[in-house]
Amino acid sequence: MVTAFDAFGGESVNPALEVVNLLPNELLAHRIVKVVLPTVFQKSRTVLMEAVRRENPDVLLSVGQAGGVSAIRVERVAINIDDARMPDNEGQEPIDCVIEENGAPAYFSNLPIKRMVSDLEARGIPAQVSNSAGTFVCNHVMYQGLFLADQEFPEMLAGFVHLPYLPKQVVSRPTLPSMSKELMVEALMQLLVTIIENTGQKDVILSGGSLF
Amino acid sequence: MVTAFDAFGGESVNPALEVVNLLPNELLAHRIVKVVLPTVFQKSRTVLMEAVRRENPDVLLSVGQAGGVSAIRVERVAINIDDARMPDNEGQEPIDCVIEENGAPAYFSNLPIKRMVSDLEARGIPAQVSNSAGTFVCNHVMYQGLFLADQEFPEMLAGFVHLPYLPKQVVSRPTLPSMSKELMVEALMQLLVTIIENTGQKDVILSGGSLF
Amino acid sequence: MVTAFDAFGGESVNPALEVVNLLPNELLAHRIVKVVLPTVFQKSRTVLMEAVRRENPDVLLSVGQAGGVSAIRVERVAINIDDARMPDNEGQEPIDCVIEENGAPAYFSNLPIKRMVSDLEARGIPAQVSNSAGTFVCNHVMYQGLFLADQEFPEMLAGFVHLPYLPKQVVSRPTLPSMSKELMVEALMQLLVTIIENTGQKDVILSGGSLF
Amino acid sequence: MVTAFDAFGGESVNPALEVVNLLPNELLAHRIVKVVLPTVFQKSRTVLMEAVRRENPDVLLSVGQAGGVSAIRVERVAINIDDARMPDNEGQEPIDCVIEENGAPAYFSNLPIKRMVSDLEARGIPAQVSNSAGTFVCNHVMYQGLFLADQEFPEMLAGFVHLPYLPKQVVSRPTLPSMSKELMVEALMQLLVTIIENTGQKDVILSGGSLF
Repeated sequence: MVTAFDAFGGESVNPALEVVNLLPNELLAHRIVKVVLPTVFQKSRTVLMEAVRRENPDVLLSVGQAGGVSAIRVERVAINIDDARMPDNEGQEPIDCVIEENGAPAYFSNLPIKRMVSDLEARGIPAQVSNSAGTFVCNHVMYQGLFLADQEFPEMLAGFVHLPYLPKQVVSRPTLPSMSKELMVEALMQLLVTIIENTGQKDVILSGGSLF
Repeated sequence: MVTAFDAFGGESVNPALEVVNLLPNELLAHRIVKVVLPTVFQKSRTVLMEAVRRENPDVLLSVGQAGGVSAIRVERVAINIDDARMPDNEGQEPIDCVIEENGAPAYFSNLPIKRMVSDLEARGIPAQVSNSAGTFVCNHVMYQGLFLADQEFPEMLAGFVHLPYLPKQVVSRPTLPSMSKELMVEALMQLLVTIIENTGQKDVILSGGSLF
Repeated sequence: MVTAFDAFGGESVNPALEVVNLLPNELLAHRIVKVVLPTVFQKSRTVLMEAVRRENPDVLLSVGQAGGVSAIRVERVAINIDDARMPDNEGQEPIDCVIEENGAPAYFSNLPIKRMVSDLEARGIPAQVSNSAGTFVCNHVMYQGLFLADQEFPEMLAGFVHLPYLPKQVVSRPTLPSMSKELMVEALMQLLVTIIENTGQKDVILSGGSLF
Repeated sequence: MVTAFDAFGGESVNPALEVVNLLPNELLAHRIVKVVLPTVFQKSRTVLMEAVRRENPDVLLSVGQAGGVSAIRVERVAINIDDARMPDNEGQEPIDCVIEENGAPAYFSNLPIKRMVSDLEARGIPAQVSNSAGTFVCNHVMYQGLFLADQEFPEMLAGFVHLPYLPKQVVSRPTLPSMSKELMVEALMQLLVTIIENTGQKDVILSGGSLF
């Protein structure tokens, strides 16, 4: 299962949605189910839970926009807090709200994040491990996915990938970085292949740390 | 108790150490105990634990360098992982090592981080909440401080502040931001005042979130 | 005539060369002559002059790498100074040397730079006017082209375009922006079309200024 | 003579004005005359010319704000073009207008710009040579100063220095760099000392180039 969000924050498009829409419906004999999540704190959870319970996927990969970054970012961890710095698509703006009272303070992705970054790099695609998915709806959805895995779907792999802006999104602000749609589709395909091919194996030991 | 690190990563100085050294030994009738931590994964923990157990401080504020940022960063959360992107000062370079087997996946600072940022801003000092302290020795020490609070010192407030480079550190790379030592001393003094004056009160509800 | 440079500054490739190599040899019934210039102060001039005198082109568009920028940059002006911040590919490192004793202090490109940027933007390609081509070999070659136009080829249009890094160039430094080869080829094709279609017309009045 | 601008572009202050106001009226037995210029294309010229003709200064150092830079920037060159990217303080927004029909395409500062940067660095103050003063009122005033030197005051030294934001200007956008007022006053004092002490001497040969 691959999820994407609708556009938010004044953007007319969301690179995650545009890229996920271009993925095939099958890859290496695995079915790909695409789910569009609203960029809304509560509603995204409802839609996600319903979809996961309906499909019981082997893998839940959520994809979002990180406007202003240069590289594909594979997230390491989701934290149990909502702190919006702008209203979501329904005007909600929670500040310092716990996501799940019964959840852990944080969940680490159980995807092979180091291998995922390394395989992108081997294809010449800029990528990095990210040590924060923020505190907006992206972190919220990543947290919910891993909470679901922890509570109900112990076999499910789950994680989150952040994409740069599309080139057309930065035409009016050309000092911001972007990545072409074609390269991001290639990247997501590779990420899914890496996940499928590494299932059941330990992640590689490669540095993906940050100093701060 | 205020801790600072020695220089690391090829720098000849650490702004945290230079600034902490200039703090007074007493503030608002509270004693300030300064502790220098080595920028070494294991050793920093040993020195920190020993100092906390000896002094039993009301507040543990650790201070570190975030080379390349423009503002004072008050950290929200420490995660239970070491992932070095360079060797520490004794050549250790742990990758994806759990910090404390018996610790939580993450600890949130119990300092009034929103008020701290807000009070700095009111003085005209650039500041922000940070939602990741990285995965190097800074996160390691912040995690250890909060683990100590959780396990042994339930009354202790603990948290972490990251400082920009000093101006002299960026003379050879003038596109990087810095902050003057005087302004950082003023900032740390204000942070301590805010912590002291807000003890026992709930933090203010102000956004300190990030999108990713 | 379209010129590109060989790789320099420790890079193994130059996006300008990779992209120019993919241009067709004819466009809108105009022949495209490609010239590779060495990233060497004196030698680039010799090769350029010889090529221009041999081909007597209608248009001289030189293309170079601006490592670290996010958008295609159409240069406005070249200044009569060499000031290297690294050795060129033959180890020369001129500092504050006049390029042409008999040249003007600066030459402004006589290409329709505003239209060029505007037409790229209309295609969804990030672009901007740049008000400095630096003081390295790129500015040197842009200056020489416009000096040639001024002194010997009064009908020749001349200018310079800077390209971002290719994605593969930033794999090891993923915080730097890049642009895909396909998008840069599309951009250069559009720039040539714009130049051809606007020959003899005044440039559009669109802001391309910078504050500093 | 040291000039500064009033605030522009939505800012409530201009660091140049705040810093210049704190300079003494005399330095090394030289009188310092301070002139406030309006951030208005035509009017800045009128006020500047009148002040220069009245005072006949040995040195004309103009100072402006470069919002978003980290270091003191000593400008090398002014170009003969106005291209506003926002309205000036009287709503004028010239695009691609020649500043002086009888002026050179560009004028190079005749101040010892390399020595100025080098002396700041020696004091631990981040500084760099800048190879573009933009195309807004700062470039306009720098150009006018050097045009005056060229046409009427052949003994006058003239140039321009750009300052970063003050810390209080970036409180609401903490990812932008700033520099404390105290450090910028120290920097301007040093720059004036350097100019005075190097009068009549050739500038040092130090790289101050940029790649693009």
